[in-house]
Amino acid sequence: MSKQGGAKHTAESPDTESRADIIIKGGTLLSMVEGQPPLTQAVVYIQGDKIVHIGSLDQEKILPHAVETINASGALVMPGLINAHCHTAMTLFRGFADDLPLKQWLFEKIFPAEAKHLSPESVYTAALLGSAEMIRSGITTVSDAYYYQDSTIKAFHESGIRAVVAQGVIDFPAPGVPDPSKNLKVGREFIERWIHFSDLITPGLFCHSLVTCSERTLREAMEISQDFSLPLQLHLSETLEEVRGVEKKSGLKPVFYLEKMGLLHDRLVAVHAVHMHEDEIDLLTERDVKVVHAPQSNMKLASGVSKVGYMLRRGLCVGIGTDGAASNNDLDLFQEMDSAAKLSKVSTLDPTSLHAEAVLKMATVWGARALGLEKQIGTIEVGKKADLIIVDTESPHLLPLYSPASALVYSATGSDVRDVIVNGKILLRNRSLLGLDLPRILNDVKLIARKIVGQTAS
Amino acid sequence: MSKQGGAKHTAESPDTESRADIIIKGGTLLSMVEGQPPLTQAVVYIQGDKIVHIGSLDQEKILPHAVETINASGALVMPGLINAHCHTAMTLFRGFADDLPLKQWLFEKIFPAEAKHLSPESVYTAALLGSAEMIRSGITTVSDAYYYQDSTIKAFHESGIRAVVAQGVIDFPAPGVPDPSKNLKVGREFIERWIHFSDLITPGLFCHSLVTCSERTLREAMEISQDFSLPLQLHLSETLEEVRGVEKKSGLKPVFYLEKMGLLHDRLVAVHAVHMHEDEIDLLTERDVKVVHAPQSNMKLASGVSKVGYMLRRGLCVGIGTDGAASNNDLDLFQEMDSAAKLSKVSTLDPTSLHAEAVLKMATVWGARALGLEKQIGTIEVGKKADLIIVDTESPHLLPLYSPASALVYSATGSDVRDVIVNGKILLRNRSLLGLDLPRILNDVKLIARKIVGQTAS
Repeated sequence: MSKQGGAKHTAESPDTESRADIIIKGGTLLSMVEGQPPLTQAVVYIQGDKIVHIGSLDQEKILPHAVETINASGALVMPGLINAHCHTAMTLFRGFADDLPLKQWLFEKIFPAEAKHLSPESVYTAALLGSAEMIRSGITTVSDAYYYQDSTIKAFHESGIRAVVAQGVIDFPAPGVPDPSKNLKVGREFIERWIHFSDLITPGLFCHSLVTCSERTLREAMEISQDFSLPLQLHLSETLEEVRGVEKKSGLKPVFYLEKMGLLHDRLVAVHAVHMHEDEIDLLTERDVKVVHAPQSNMKLASGVSKVGYMLRRGLCVGIGTDGAASNNDLDLFQEMDSAAKLSKVSTLDPTSLHAEAVLKMATVWGARALGLEKQIGTIEVGKKADLIIVDTESPHLLPLYSPASALVYSATGSDVRDVIVNGKILLRNRSLLGLDLPRILNDVKLIARKIVGQTAS
Repeated sequence: MSKQGGAKHTAESPDTESRADIIIKGGTLLSMVEGQPPLTQAVVYIQGDKIVHIGSLDQEKILPHAVETINASGALVMPGLINAHCHTAMTLFRGFADDLPLKQWLFEKIFPAEAKHLSPESVYTAALLGSAEMIRSGITTVSDAYYYQDSTIKAFHESGIRAVVAQGVIDFPAPGVPDPSKNLKVGREFIERWIHFSDLITPGLFCHSLVTCSERTLREAMEISQDFSLPLQLHLSETLEEVRGVEKKSGLKPVFYLEKMGLLHDRLVAVHAVHMHEDEIDLLTERDVKVVHAPQSNMKLASGVSKVGYMLRRGLCVGIGTDGAASNNDLDLFQEMDSAAKLSKVSTLDPTSLHAEAVLKMATVWGARALGLEKQIGTIEVGKKADLIIVDTESPHLLPLYSPASALVYSATGSDVRDVIVNGKILLRNRSLLGLDLPRILNDVKLIARKIVGQTAS
């Protein structure tokens, strides 16, 4: 049903005749480039880690030879989704504690379980599980924030997913960082260790919150991030209690407290941003701070509703994330998009407050910009990294297909993703993971979970 | 991880040795019977259309011969889900119009499209599409409310799904009922035509709303429903505008207006029940009126948030429904359950307001009671109809499996359903539809949709 794209998709058409490694042909392309309508019967050539040509099957009857040709008929081809905030290894605590008051959930269940059961080994296994889940559901880039991040990187590297991996910084003893006075030393060394490791991995820092990090810690974390030109993630104004804590501590609203400390930088990634006054949103916009929306976690933990519609109207750059599996309880960005749009509508009593098209941008172009990766990923364009997914729409729940954006946001789930390519490498083909030993991962996770249940019961 | 059930699941163990048609073995059984914990290594025998035996593999080493033995290891076995409110044939308008103000969506898009494109043929095809979607996602009973319902029954009958099929009643010209003065004559004849047709089909009536039906129409619809001992569906207090309309018309809050008309009957099924004062909820409870919650539709149309937590605490019987695909945009009750719990939490700022276990009951036992079918379906018990589903949990997004209820509500989607049995007949086996020609249905739907786009554009 989608119309033939009128815009020029072909920027350059180099000597592709003999050089395509992967050709995707016949699907409807959503490039996510501003102003480009869906292009039916598209062809995309990938060479190495890059997109080298975009065209139309109607005009290219004879395609060059490729190592792999993927038929995308009856499917949508789009940029891989960007999960802009996740604590991937928390898959270990998926369903471990639900439906509890926030404080009880966090202090009686999650924190003790993390203290007891997190280790380099368990984080590695849980991050593999999360990688498998994310790749299967079309996430090609994840921004992760947690502890034992060497293990997370090891897992991500094995899985082939692209990632920003941030070492957690908190002024309390934390998993792997028993002495909080060393939290930034650990952080800086973490960055130095991984910054040149791989094109796919961007290390970084994640400050837990304005109430669990001191002013000095926050400033130093930003200094380190600026030294390396890296994004700094921060949970900001997630709960009312947190906001009250900041106001008590500083006498200021959280965003103005950040302003006073000089931390409102375009590399700051403010995660959640739920309880925010309009003047705070305006200031974030002015400073080009990035925001990540995590609606399902905000709903499940009863944190509140972020003013996403207002943020977008102001021009703030908003990405979208699943948060950890302990508060979601999955890493499916399709369902997260659906919730983002619907929650915005019902909370404002305005069905026009957040459109499917805008939500798709949050999960692609804007997510890329939030992470400072917009030159590499977020759209399907010649010269960009080949991070793209193919979504099978030949299913009862996705037909009729009047509007690709509507189908993707309101009807699709991660299970509709058929193929996933990251950095020119096929990670999922016909719904099968190519690079990971899924049965082994599931088995390893079950063994750890059995221990967690046993030790918690005893 | 689930514990061995302590309660007795075996009510009677008749001469099953040579008489089981289907045996399900090895999964974890959630019977949804009050007080029964999950039973691991379960066996369920089905004979004809009934469940005849429930036991444990540990105690039954030698199983009788069966026509079909289904291995449910690594899966959950539970009652089929009950979609307590749907306009199934509206799958035709899935994604046809989104992100619009409610009035514009309804009066400029949906109503004209219905008037132009609904016919016995298109409703039949669209209801087949919806049946395929529902069966694949674990719905074994649907309560449908729409027009051209002979066609809907034909489609449901072919698909094998169990259904309450209600003829729409409205005091305006409607699809298939051009003369509103005949709406109840049409309704009564519809019931008479189908009441003895099949065990699987319950005909009935659906009054569109208190503002689109006159007092006389409402009373007569209830009389007919009582004559045949059938549920009467009614959209109630879905939007603020509707509530204001009722108050203007009657001087009363909607529930008190129903009370004045003598319509608060235990067969009344009040759908949506969004804008409701506590005294209205209390009165509904007192009269044992049933409520159906449709959170995703309420969110997407920006109607408002139903006080489900309060309703359940009062003891009101609440089922859950997807509503039509034009306002959802899918018929996946797993995602609807997830939204119900999360929306309740965030709207009350109380993470304990609606538990996963309660939401599961809404989709099974309480849904059955809402439709007057609780003696036949809603739980897995000896003597009940064999309507059950098997949910594959050997997937990254469903592990670890600390709590079956949590996994089903917060992590699963319809695509995790592996097998579906309705009335003792297998409709889905290893994710393949057995009774429906899916490629033909998808093709037929595309042809109709092409016409809709063409005629709308012209």
